Parts: sequence; C-alpha cells; structure tokens
Amino acid sequence: MKYFYLVPVASVVALIVAYYFFKQMMKKSEGSEKMKSIAGYIRDGAMSYLKQQYKVVIIVFIILALIFTVMAYFGMQNNWVPFAFITGGFFSALAGFFGMKTATFASARTAHAVQHSLNYGLKLAFRSGAVMGLVVVGLALLDISAWYLILDYFVEDADAGHKLIMITTTMLTFGMGASIQALFARVGGGIYTKAADVGADLVGKVEAGIPEDDPRNPATIADNVGDNVGDVAGMGADLYESYCGSILSTAALGASAFVLNPTMQQNAVFAPMIIAAIGVFLSILGIFIVKTKDEANIKELMDSLNRGVNVSAIFIALSTFLILYLLDFSNWIGLSFSVITGLIAGIIIGQGTEYFTSSSHKPTIRIAESAKTGPATVIISGLGTGFISTSIPVLTIVFAILISFLSATGFDISNMLSPESVSMGLYGIAIASVGMLSTLSITLATDAYGPIADNAGGIAEMSNLEPEVRNRTDMLDSLGNTTAATGKGFAIGSAALTGLALMASYVEELRVALLRTGETILYMSNGNTIEVAKASFVDFMNYYQVTLMNPKVITGIFLGSMMVFLFCGLTMNAVGRTAQSMVEEVRRQFREIKGILTGEETPNYSLCVSISTKGAQREMLLPSLLAVAAPILTGLFMGVSGVMGLLAGGLGSGFVMAIFMANSGGAWDNAKKYIEMDNLGGKGSESHKASIVGDTVGDPFKDTSGPSLNILIKLMSMVAIVMAGLTVAWSLI
Amino acid sequence: MKYFYLVPVASVVALIVAYYFFKQMMKKSEGSEKMKSIAGYIRDGAMSYLKQQYKVVIIVFIILALIFTVMAYFGMQNNWVPFAFITGGFFSALAGFFGMKTATFASARTAHAVQHSLNYGLKLAFRSGAVMGLVVVGLALLDISAWYLILDYFVEDADAGHKLIMITTTMLTFGMGASIQALFARVGGGIYTKAADVGADLVGKVEAGIPEDDPRNPATIADNVGDNVGDVAGMGADLYESYCGSILSTAALGASAFVLNPTMQQNAVFAPMIIAAIGVFLSILGIFIVKTKDEANIKELMDSLNRGVNVSAIFIALSTFLILYLLDFSNWIGLSFSVITGLIAGIIIGQGTEYFTSSSHKPTIRIAESAKTGPATVIISGLGTGFISTSIPVLTIVFAILISFLSATGFDISNMLSPESVSMGLYGIAIASVGMLSTLSITLATDAYGPIADNAGGIAEMSNLEPEVRNRTDMLDSLGNTTAATGKGFAIGSAALTGLALMASYVEELRVALLRTGETILYMSNGNTIEVAKASFVDFMNYYQVTLMNPKVITGIFLGSMMVFLFCGLTMNAVGRTAQSMVEEVRRQFREIKGILTGEETPNYSLCVSISTKGAQREMLLPSLLAVAAPILTGLFMGVSGVMGLLAGGLGSGFVMAIFMANSGGAWDNAKKYIEMDNLGGKGSESHKASIVGDTVGDPFKDTSGPSLNILIKLMSMVAIVMAGLTVAWSLI
Repeated sequence: MKYFYLVPVASVVALIVAYYFFKQMMKKSEGSEKMKSIAGYIRDGAMSYLKQQYKVVIIVFIILALIFTVMAYFGMQNNWVPFAFITGGFFSALAGFFGMKTATFASARTAHAVQHSLNYGLKLAFRSGAVMGLVVVGLALLDISAWYLILDYFVEDADAGHKLIMITTTMLTFGMGASIQALFARVGGGIYTKAADVGADLVGKVEAGIPEDDPRNPATIADNVGDNVGDVAGMGADLYESYCGSILSTAALGASAFVLNPTMQQNAVFAPMIIAAIGVFLSILGIFIVKTKDEANIKELMDSLNRGVNVSAIFIALSTFLILYLLDFSNWIGLSFSVITGLIAGIIIGQGTEYFTSSSHKPTIRIAESAKTGPATVIISGLGTGFISTSIPVLTIVFAILISFLSATGFDISNMLSPESVSMGLYGIAIASVGMLSTLSITLATDAYGPIADNAGGIAEMSNLEPEVRNRTDMLDSLGNTTAATGKGFAIGSAALTGLALMASYVEELRVALLRTGETILYMSNGNTIEVAKASFVDFMNYYQVTLMNPKVITGIFLGSMMVFLFCGLTMNAVGRTAQSMVEEVRRQFREIKGILTGEETPNYSLCVSISTKGAQREMLLPSLLAVAAPILTGLFMGVSGVMGLLAGGLGSGFVMAIFMANSGGAWDNAKKYIEMDNLGGKGSESHKASIVGDTVGDPFKDTSGPSLNILIKLMSMVAIVMAGLTVAWSLI
Repeated sequence: MKYFYLVPVASVVALIVAYYFFKQMMKKSEGSEKMKSIAGYIRDGAMSYLKQQYKVVIIVFIILALIFTVMAYFGMQNNWVPFAFITGGFFSALAGFFGMKTATFASARTAHAVQHSLNYGLKLAFRSGAVMGLVVVGLALLDISAWYLILDYFVEDADAGHKLIMITTTMLTFGMGASIQALFARVGGGIYTKAADVGADLVGKVEAGIPEDDPRNPATIADNVGDNVGDVAGMGADLYESYCGSILSTAALGASAFVLNPTMQQNAVFAPMIIAAIGVFLSILGIFIVKTKDEANIKELMDSLNRGVNVSAIFIALSTFLILYLLDFSNWIGLSFSVITGLIAGIIIGQGTEYFTSSSHKPTIRIAESAKTGPATVIISGLGTGFISTSIPVLTIVFAILISFLSATGFDISNMLSPESVSMGLYGIAIASVGMLSTLSITLATDAYGPIADNAGGIAEMSNLEPEVRNRTDMLDSLGNTTAATGKGFAIGSAALTGLALMASYVEELRVALLRTGETILYMSNGNTIEVAKASFVDFMNYYQVTLMNPKVITGIFLGSMMVFLFCGLTMNAVGRTAQSMVEEVRRQFREIKGILTGEETPNYSLCVSISTKGAQREMLLPSLLAVAAPILTGLFMGVSGVMGLLAGGLGSGFVMAIFMANSGGAWDNAKKYIEMDNLGGKGSESHKASIVGDTVGDPFKDTSGPSLNILIKLMSMVAIVMAGLTVAWSLI
C-alpha cells in the first residue's frame, strides 16, 4: 500500500504546478486595450458556450444516474455506481473547463509576448498548454485515488480476491462518466468550431478574398471561440477520459489476472496507477527542461520541445523496471517491456502521422500538386492518401498488441492461449496503453499550446498588430501542428489498446454481474461445470460462444462497423448543416451591411456565435445518445456474444477510420499551407482555391468526427460494462 | 441425382436464349455510316483494352497455378486445384468478354432504335443486357455441373461423407479463380473508365463548357470505351464470381452440415445448384414478360421492368418450397424461408440504396442544396449521407443473417449454438445468398442495359443525331440508374452473406487440410480428444480458440479493416493519378490544337485511350496482389485464428465501406443530375459546378473502389481456403 500514496501525491503536485504556471501566466500583460477587449470577447463566448453545453450534459447525466440507481435497486449494479459515474463526468468537465480558461487567458498574452521574441511566446504558450496537461492528469489521479480509498474502506471483505474485482469494476463506471462527458465535449465542441471555421473560410477567404481572422469577417470571433471550445476544452475532456480509461481497465485486468494471489493482486491493481504517478513527476521534469535561447530559430524550438518529451519518456521507461521490480512481479522485465512497447508504438504512430500529413513529405506534396487539376482531384487524392496512411498505425498497433501480450507472458508462444497466459497477456496489453499515456502531461502540453498560438494569431490579426507578429504566431502554430501529430498518435493508439483492454474488462464484469445475481456455476456445453468465481477469460468465451462462427458475434461486428460509419455521418452532416447556416449568415451580412468590407462598419459577430452554439447543442445529442444506446440494445437483443461482436467491430473499424480521418484532414490542411508558402502558384491561385476546398472538407474530419471516434470506441465498451447486469439478466436470443 | 441434371440443362438453355437474343440484336441496323464508325472505334478500343488486361491476368494465373501445383506436390492441396482454379478464371473472363462484345454491338443499334421509339430502344437494350445476364449464369452453371461430374467420377470413394466434402471444397478453388479475374476486371476496368470519365468531365464540362460526349473532347472515346470495360465487362466478371461463390460455399456447407447422412448430404450439395437452375428458367420467363406498348412513358417502362423482376422472384420463392420438399429436407419449410429471407433482404437493400441515392428523395436533394455553398459542402454532405446510408443495409443484413440462421434450425433459439444448429444455421445463411442471387439473369439484365443506353447516348451525341434521340437515351439511362440500384443491392448484400458462408467454408477446409496431412485427432485444451472427421464448427472454434479474447483474432480484425481502407486508398489514388494525366493531356490538346474547339480539327482520341489503358494496367496489380497476399501472410504469421480475424474484420468493414462508397457516389451523381434538371440554378450555375466536383469524386467511389470491395471480401476468404493447407502446416505464433 505504501507505494500507492505516490498516486495522490502526484495528483496534488500536478495540480500545484499547474496552479503555479497559471499564476505566472496571469502576471503577464495582455497587450493593448484592443487585444484585451478581443480576448475578453472570445473568452466570454467560449465560457458561455461551455455553460450551455454543460446544461444539456447535466440533464443526460441525471437521467443516466437515475437509471443506474434503479439498476442498483434491482440488484443489477452496486450502489456506488451512480456516484462514481457522476464524479467521472464532473472531473472530466472540470479538466476541460480549466484548460480552456487558461487558454483564453493565455492567447492575448502570447500575442503580446511574441512581439518581444518568438522564444518568449513559445514558453508562455507551452506552459499554458502544460496547465491543461497537468490539470488533466492531476484530476484523473485525484479521482482514481479518492475512489480507491473510499471503496477500499466501504466494500465488504467477503473474499479478498473478489473485493478488488468489485472495486476496480466499480471504478470503471467513473470512466463511463468521463467518456460520455468527453464525447459531448468533442462532438459539441467539434461541431461548433468547424461550422464556424468552414463558414468563415468559405465566404471570407474564398468568396470575399479577405485573410484568415480578418476582423471584417462576421464569423471570425465564432471561429476563435471554436478553437477554444473544440480544440482545448474538447481535447482536455477527451484525454482525461483516455487517461482514466487506460489506468482503470489495467487495474481491472490486474485484479483478474492475479485473483489467486491477494498480495500480487493488490500490486497489479496499483501498478498502472503508480506508473502514471511516476510519469507525472518525470513529465514535470520534462516541462521544465523546455527552454531555448532567445534568438532560437524554429528548428531549435522544435528540438527543445522534443527534448522535453524524450527525456520524460526515457526516464519513465527506466523507472518502469524499478516500479515493477519493487512491486514484486515475478516477470517484471517482461511486463516492463510491455509498457515500453506502448511508449514506442505511440511514437511510431505519431511519426507515421507526421510523414503522411507534413508538407515536407511526398504524400502531402502530391495532394498539393493534385490541386493543379482542381478541387475534385484534391479530394480524391486526399481521401486516397488518408486511406493508405492507415497501414502504418494499424501494423504498429498489431505488433504492439502481440508483443505486449507475449512479453507479459514471458514469450511462451506454444502456450500463449492458456487461460493463465491470456489473463497475463491482456494485462500486458492494458499496461502498454498506460505506458503510452504516461507522458501525457507533457505531450498534452505540446498539443494544447497549438490552439493557444492559433488564437494568439487571430487576436494579432484582429488587433492590427504588425505582420511580423502574425508570422511568428503562425510559426508557433505550424510547430504545434507537428508536435500535435505525435499527440494524436498517442491518443489514437491508446484508444485501440484501451478499447481492447475494456473488452476484456467487460468479460471480467460478467463475472461480477453473474455473482451478483447469485449464479455461481457455469454449465458448459460439453457437460463440464466451472465455478463463476474461478472461470477464466477462455472459459467465459467458451460459455458464451464468443467465436467467429456464432452469427451473433458476426452480426455484432457488422453493427459495430455500422456504428462507426453512422456516427461519422451524423457528425459530418451536423457540421455541414451548421456551416451552411453560417455561410448564409456571413453572406447576408456582407450583402446587407455594405460598410463591413470597407471596414467602416463592425459586423454582427454574436449572430454567428449563436448559430454555432445552437447548431452544436442541437446536433450533439443524437450521435452521443446513439453511442450509449447501441451496446444496451445489442445486449438486450443478442446477449453477451452480440455485445462483444459490437465492441470488436467498433474497435476495428473505429480505430482505422479515426486514423483515416485525422490523416486526410491533416494532409489537406498542410497541402493548403504548402501552396500558401508560394508553391504551385501560391495564395489566390486556382490551385490555392482548390486546396481550400480540401482543407474545408478536412476540418470536420480531423477535428469533429475523427477524434470523437477515439471516445466512441471506449464509450461503447464502458456502457457495455456498466450494463452487463442487464445483459446477463435478459436477452432476446 | 435426377434433379441435378436440371443444372446443366438450365445452363444450356440460358446460353441458347442468350445466343438467340444476340442474333436478334445483330439483325438490327447500326444506323448511319458515322454511327457505325464511332461504334466500331469504341468496340475496337474496348476489345484491345480487354486483350491487354487478359495478358497481365494470364501471367498472374500461371504463377498462381504453378504455386498450387507445387502445393499439391507437397500434399498441401489436391491435384485438381490448379485446373479448377484456371477454369474459374477463364469462364469469368469469358462472361465479361461476351457481355462486352454484345454491349458494344448493341449501343449504336440502340441509338438507332430510339430514333423510332423509346420502347423499341428499351427492348433492344434490355435484351442485350439480358445476353450478359444469361451468359453469366449459363457459364457459371456449366462450370459448376461439369466440375461436379468430373470430380464425382474421379475422386475416390474412401468415405462417402468425406468424398462430397472433398469435391465441394475443391470446387471452391474455381471460385478463387473467378474472384481473382473479377478483381482484376473491376479494378482495371474501374480505373480505366473513371480516369477517362473524370478527365473528360473536368476539362470538357467544367473548363471548356462543352457537353458530355461532345466529339470535340479528346477523352470522349476513352470515356465510352471505359463504360464498356468497366461497367459491362467488370460487372459481368464480378457477378459471375458472386454467383459461383454463393452456390459453391452453400454446397460446401451442405456437405458439412449433413455429413452423417449420405443421401441428405448429396441433396444438400445439390440444393443451391437446383435453386439456381430453377431461377434461370423463371428469370427467362421474366425477361420475356418485359415489353410495353409503343407509346409507353417512362413510368410504364419502369413498371414493365419491375414486373419482370417481381414475377421471377415470386415464382422462385414458391418453387423453392417444392424443390426443398422434393429433396427430402425434413425442415424444408424453414430452409425455404431462409432462401426467401435472402430474396427479400436484397430487395430492401436495393430500395434503401434507391432512397439514399435517388433525386426524388430528401437525402440527395439536400446534397444538391448544399451545392449553393460550394463544392466543400457538397463533399461534406455527400460523405455524411453516404456514411449514414449504411445503416439500412447493415440492419437488413443483420436481420437476414439471424433469421435465415434461425429459420434453418427451426427457430430453436434456446439451442441455437449447439454444433448441429450452427452447421444447419450456416447452411441457411449460405442458401439465403443463393436466394438473393437466384434472379440474377434478369436483375443483371436491368443492370447491364444502363451502360448500353449510356453508350447509345454517347454515339448519338458524337454522330450529331437530333437532340430528341439524346433525350430518349438519357431517359433510358436514368431508368437504368434506378433499376441498377436494386442490382447493386443484390451484389452488396450477397457479398456479405457469401463472405460469411466462405468463412464457414474455410473452417470446413481446415478439416480437409488436417486430414490430408494425416492429422486425425484434435487434442482439445480441456484434455478431451475429438476426431477431425467428426469435429463440428464449434469444436474447431474451440480448438483454434477463434474467440474475441484471443489477441490473434483481434489483431486479425484490425488487419482486415486496414486491408479495406488500404485497398480503397490504392484504387482511389490510381484513379486520381491516371485522371490527372488525362486532364493534362486534354488540356494540352485544347491548347496546342487550336481547331479542336471550333470543330475544324479532330482531337487525338487514341492518346487518351492509351493513357487510360496504361494507367489501368500499371495500377491494378498492387491492390489485387495485396488482396491475395494478405491472407497468406496473416496465416503464415498468426495461423488460423489470425486468418479468421482478418476475414471477419474485412467482411465487417468491407461491407459497410462498400455501401458507403456506392451510395455516396450514386447520390453525388444524382444530385448533379437534379441540378441539371433546372433546379437550384440549373446547368452552368455555380451550384452546378460545385455538384460536378461531387460527381467527380463519386466516380471512383461508386465504380472503382466500392464495387471492388465486394470482390475483395470474398477473394480474401477464397485465398484463405485454398491456402489452408499451408496455414495448418506452418505458422509463426
């Protein structure tokens, strides 16, 4: 237990450092009055949207918590579930809220800071990004350690092995709370920001020919608000969910894998938490390392960021050996390699993303070149490249899964599918995802500072600062795009691993659900009987026939794939519809208020803000509720094997689709930037216009539908876990 | 055995009727000298491309046949496999060749015929389409009955139950030959036609503002050749493959399900063939029913086509009861309902396709309306609609799978996963796909006459016939689009069912492969032993642990999903690249040969033809070979469970992706046509230009990548089946 206390300590340290960075940032000047007022306007818009969003989300949470209470009353869940569920949602929202608050305070200050020097701006934006990184991990570890201590105190100790399984599966329900909140934040924020972005670009850039963030564009404030609610608050909630999900599912699988050995069981539950805690300390070290000389160029800035991340990663890898050794794992070396596999896989996926989306490599340059023959070929080649780009991450994750599985079982290949090996192997896969996310506080800092720099550029443009300022913020922004690629790699890769771990946790939850309803014996089809308390993953698979010759599994896989496509369709159309209203409103203002384009009259920003707000609120409910309903309905109709098929199909298609969308979107964005750097005719040319079409289509790909899929994959598993009691009690076929 | 002879009889009747229709069509006049010469040019272009394509394919076939010979030599396959493989490819190519030959003779005659009356043209085009439908089913049944008779004569009768399993699994290898040939035809033809189409449209329609098929457009001949090699020859080979695949996989599962009862085993093998044979007779009846009054309007024409299809379908449904009763199936009523489930599912999927892609329904009209805000919103809403449209077909196929499974087992839900039920249920799913394709000769006729009408329009335009002729061929073409939606529904739906049946056949082939290598006992993990000859599907699943907690299965699912995306990416990029060369060539001719646009000089058509030919030949190899390599490599690396995961992942993602691509592409096409019917500004407006971008992106979606996926799904299973001997003998983990 002694090492466990590292977890709350890490949590408190993270929050203190975050508060320190926040206070430091707040001391800086926001610049001129004009900058202050614009920043204030953006801040107010973002905050008021977030409040609106939370109002909707709170209603959903109350309804679901009531359902869980009823389930608990009928013995289908335990009494802690509604509370755990709510805290997960609350902390996730809080992480997004604090991150966004910081970002909206930081952007004008960054714009002001780059007036002095690029380096000064980088440091300010990066440390403000770090606030979000630290708040996310700090709140996550706080929630995890608090709930662990509460449940450890209250849950009855009828059977030590079973107690930890109870605790860890209950804690997964706060993961579900975090997931739902994250999905709403990603979908709602994504619709908001991309509708505004698309609307602003299509009329402003393409039709009126005014630059990005020009104050004459009525949608420009909405666009900048959007960066905050989508890219900052949405991302914060998203990664809070990923972080909790990976730790909690690993803990649940640890409780299962070591069920026969109480001491090791406890250690296996603590291991992911402690690795995460050590990760926090070492990431803080990395954050402090990021600093450069005042006259640094962009390459040196980049190196500096990378140095911070790499130092953290290497030290975490080394500490893992020590932690797992101290926790008495007999196969501590193998398990450490599982963790390291996760870390390395995250980096490879990030580099693959960078290769396919950066304008210094062939694929994106080819997309840019296809702009010579118009928008249609830009779209075709962007889609084609995105499809092809899925191969590197998928192959990487396939190897990562197999290696982390085998490594955890001591590479006993001939025996790899024995019940013991499967338990250990799944624990190995889960802990690989913890490894992948252990550097989260620093990678998230490199990710979150992008939108801050982006907003700083917007404020610079709107405040008519000298062009050099805008150039510098653009440089920071494009640096952010590159580092964000790595961040995205970690987010997508960890979603695949965690999704798989959550499928295994679902099987574990079946045990709990069966025992709760008093079923203690599994009557197998071959006439054998197995005690539920002692049944292995393999036994459960055989009992429920979760094989690929079971039509319920196969149809489940079809449904899972369909869910991914349907979800993308609903979110894409939501952006499309809201963007169309935005385009029409911007066109109307340009047409009816003649003074806007000459700069004599101020456009009506707030009408555009309210179009985005209403669109996001209206459109986010259906896809999110569908994600909650799918596993419940599948369970009621087709039982356990159907649900597992659904999760596997959703995981397979969702992972690949998420990469496709992120990479197509990123590549279109950078192909456009490549042309803007005076290639192929440069700004204003026909090629440029064609590339803007690509970028516009890519917007909802990379910032709405794509990142939401990471959450969808996990949310469906979480819902299945929480509803396992219902599925076990009742299913049609 | 007596009923079996219906199969060769049906085959011969189909071929005779096809020949009769062909001869009748040839008697008609091709019209003016100009029309003759243009038709001749298109015919020569199409034939010379097909010859080029076959040259490449023959090399691939020789190499693969050599590999199978080596495998047979080492006891990993039987000696018949290389020959069966080659005939499958040969007949598939022949079906495409005859269909295309007929189409290229029919199009000028159709153009000439509509000069007299619409109805006259419909009948000619429809009967020419029927030639292809009849040739496809005739050759398929010929190949099937010939091989059955040969193998029945030569295969040793060591053990009657095992003999039929040997015969049916061997026959599956000619399915593999058909699949590979079909994939090359679809991919090569698809690249050819869409590169030409995109190139012709982008420069001709958008830049030069000349109409479709204008003789001044250098790419117009290539475009018309493309319709033949892609939409006719490609589709013929494709559906030959689907038809054989569904019958052969059903036969193989029948041999397995009734292994303990020799008489019923024989009948279960014959049942799908006889249902198909009866389907041929009744479809011919339907074809003769299609005729209308001379002054018929488009609605009456449509009704007439539908009447033909419906009469065939209803009679087939009724006959099924009789056939299965005469074949002594104890559950003949349940199995008949499985067949009917397939038929109905095909119709529902077709109607779903029609709803989402027809310009008389909301989804497509919304896409057209999004053109008001430019090409980016057209693309976003087209993708969004396509994603959403996957839900109807997926839900339909999910219900069809479950109902046809349960119906075949007598709705014994509590017992649905017993070994006997699983065998029967899988047979039920397989025979549902036979039901779905039993009307193929008439549905394919309604499908194939579309490209004929399309080409007739092209010839009318190029021969400067009066505009009324073009209007009439356009009317026929648009009628063809609607009926083709149903055809596509059958093709996609049957691919899902057959893909699933082939996965089961793969498991059956494992038995054959194990027995061939002398392994007669499965040592199960729980200590039991089971004879290979008597092992059920459930036993094989348990033995190889093909469950969703096996990391090899899950990683296989990831790889399967990835294959689908990668394949789409390669084919999309192939079209994009070839189209870009085409655009540049057309632009060059317009620029350098001044007289083209004034009509004073003839463009150089053959340069455009050769760009498409070379592009198709160069680009079709990699995606096709990848599809062959993936199951082999997965098997060598991860064994049986990895392969099954690959197939399940490919099936799940591939089915959904195929629908998405077909429907997005179709909806964009019809959104453009909707605008061209004087809506939203009509031809030449900004909205129209935006909608052309959508249509252009949709071209490779609906005619290259999308339809190829249907084949990919099945080809990967076929390769796995043929290579099972290798996987069983050797795998890394």
